[in-house]
Amino acid sequence: VLITGGAGCIGSDLATRLLDDEIEVIVIDNLSSGKEEHIEPFRGLPNFRFVEGDLLDRGLVDSVMPRVEMVYHLAANPDVKFTAGDPTDKDLQQNTLVTFNLLESMRIHGCRRLAFSSTSAVYGIAERLPIAEDNPCHPISLYGATKLSCEAMIGAFQNLFGIKSWIFRFANVVGPKVRKRGKTVIGDFIDRLRQNPHRLKILGDGFQAKSYLLSAECVDAMLFAVRHADAGLNVFNLGCTDSLQVRRIADMVVEAMGLQNVEFEFTGGEGGWPGDVPRFTLDVTAINRLGWRASHNSEEAVAAAIRSSLESCRSEATCKP
Amino acid sequence: VLITGGAGCIGSDLATRLLDDEIEVIVIDNLSSGKEEHIEPFRGLPNFRFVEGDLLDRGLVDSVMPRVEMVYHLAANPDVKFTAGDPTDKDLQQNTLVTFNLLESMRIHGCRRLAFSSTSAVYGIAERLPIAEDNPCHPISLYGATKLSCEAMIGAFQNLFGIKSWIFRFANVVGPKVRKRGKTVIGDFIDRLRQNPHRLKILGDGFQAKSYLLSAECVDAMLFAVRHADAGLNVFNLGCTDSLQVRRIADMVVEAMGLQNVEFEFTGGEGGWPGDVPRFTLDVTAINRLGWRASHNSEEAVAAAIRSSLESCRSEATCKP
Repeated sequence: VLITGGAGCIGSDLATRLLDDEIEVIVIDNLSSGKEEHIEPFRGLPNFRFVEGDLLDRGLVDSVMPRVEMVYHLAANPDVKFTAGDPTDKDLQQNTLVTFNLLESMRIHGCRRLAFSSTSAVYGIAERLPIAEDNPCHPISLYGATKLSCEAMIGAFQNLFGIKSWIFRFANVVGPKVRKRGKTVIGDFIDRLRQNPHRLKILGDGFQAKSYLLSAECVDAMLFAVRHADAGLNVFNLGCTDSLQVRRIADMVVEAMGLQNVEFEFTGGEGGWPGDVPRFTLDVTAINRLGWRASHNSEEAVAAAIRSSLESCRSEATCKP
Repeated sequence: VLITGGAGCIGSDLATRLLDDEIEVIVIDNLSSGKEEHIEPFRGLPNFRFVEGDLLDRGLVDSVMPRVEMVYHLAANPDVKFTAGDPTDKDLQQNTLVTFNLLESMRIHGCRRLAFSSTSAVYGIAERLPIAEDNPCHPISLYGATKLSCEAMIGAFQNLFGIKSWIFRFANVVGPKVRKRGKTVIGDFIDRLRQNPHRLKILGDGFQAKSYLLSAECVDAMLFAVRHADAGLNVFNLGCTDSLQVRRIADMVVEAMGLQNVEFEFTGGEGGWPGDVPRFTLDVTAINRLGWRASHNSEEAVAAAIRSSLESCRSEATCKP
């Protein structure tokens, strides 16, 4: 099994599961947002191999593909935010073009199974909530737009070349690990409060309410769906049914860090950044019907992620405030 | 106004309308499927300028964009068919990357109005017919997938950078003009019958039934929608409500050419080629409600296109059988 982005938060959790099952795992990661420490525990395992490199390099992809039976394609530009001055082509490069490269290499080398980490951002601002998989997709961010591009190409390759595919549209995935770039709201709040425990800047008006899923549960759902969903092209929302307000997350982080009288400063506006979808809940009936259900709701997932983030940080000198 | 692909069948019909309205028109076309003869009538008009070149060349796009107030982006790889052995990246290049280039140039140079020729192929095999704009999109061809990619990027640029956009999902557009590559069914049948008036090869089982729209009507609908639809992002199916079987089109062409006892040879299979959507009708309620309605149904459109194709060919020495 090839895991692209396997040094990332979700990718390395997936690698742990597959390696435990004694599956041979190759990880490709350019370490732009993933971290060596996430794959450090796998070093020396006989069924693990790490290839550092960029998936835009077709030669690199082709060099591993002949041995690969299935690809979990999790590599992406992880930062949903677009900030004025950012290059506008980073999602095109790291999502659309990388995915095409991978599909083309799979086609040529006869690899016929692909799981893909898409995102609830493909829906954009939905007219009705919760959002089911057959809702129209009108992404409003470059991140969401290029993920939808990937989905569309995967569908075409599935139909034309028989690459059986599982597309997962993730809720906000949280966990103990923190990326180099594109932090989740939890990592962002912890960092800011470490720098200044009296004041917390919160993007938007704080009423953004999104759906959260623990990374370990996300991995569990993917493995379950790949085992049990058998169509040529399988599309699933992954998440739970509820959502959680950003203000509530701020309160939870403050409390978990044992702080008091923290002043919240809101940057204002409905969304946290240009292209942000301020409020959504996912209809997860399809994955539930298949037989999988998240065991944490959004608040429980966020609480667990806050706890484990603080714990893993306490054990590292570099994270100490 | 910039018309990309303006030497194409639809692009040159659009240019005629805009030039008649005394609008300044720039056409960019690489003449890969468009033809010089389509823009020949505009040569010498004071409000017309032709730039031959490829839209992948950002310098070229940037060289014209500062003067442009609105873009009609019709350039594309026009051939929906994927044939084994074809490069798999031609749609990615000519649809996805070209459209990104154009959007980025528009963003930088402050051009804030874009009309885009998308396709009913973005829907793939729909669960219910007729297909409305809010149906799920699961394209099964590289052509449809990359057109959906373009739509998604346009939506993101609309939201992030205020580029007001009109996306048109065309039925099969037919007319008197014939492309260099990617012929429509009518041009294909006429060509084959000229080569052999006794026998006609028909792709698929002939029961494919699609919706057709005359090029002149397609242009009229676009101009109408751009004038009357005022959302940031406007998405319209363009076509009529009915569909027409390929077998019927074959009969119509045979009759119009005055042939008899032509033997039809079907290649078999539901679709005409890998990635073909064999049967569809479009729900055109949205454009009808806006105040526009096709004045020809599919059969009338095809009949008119057959007539005009045969007429324009009769006048050209090169088309004579």
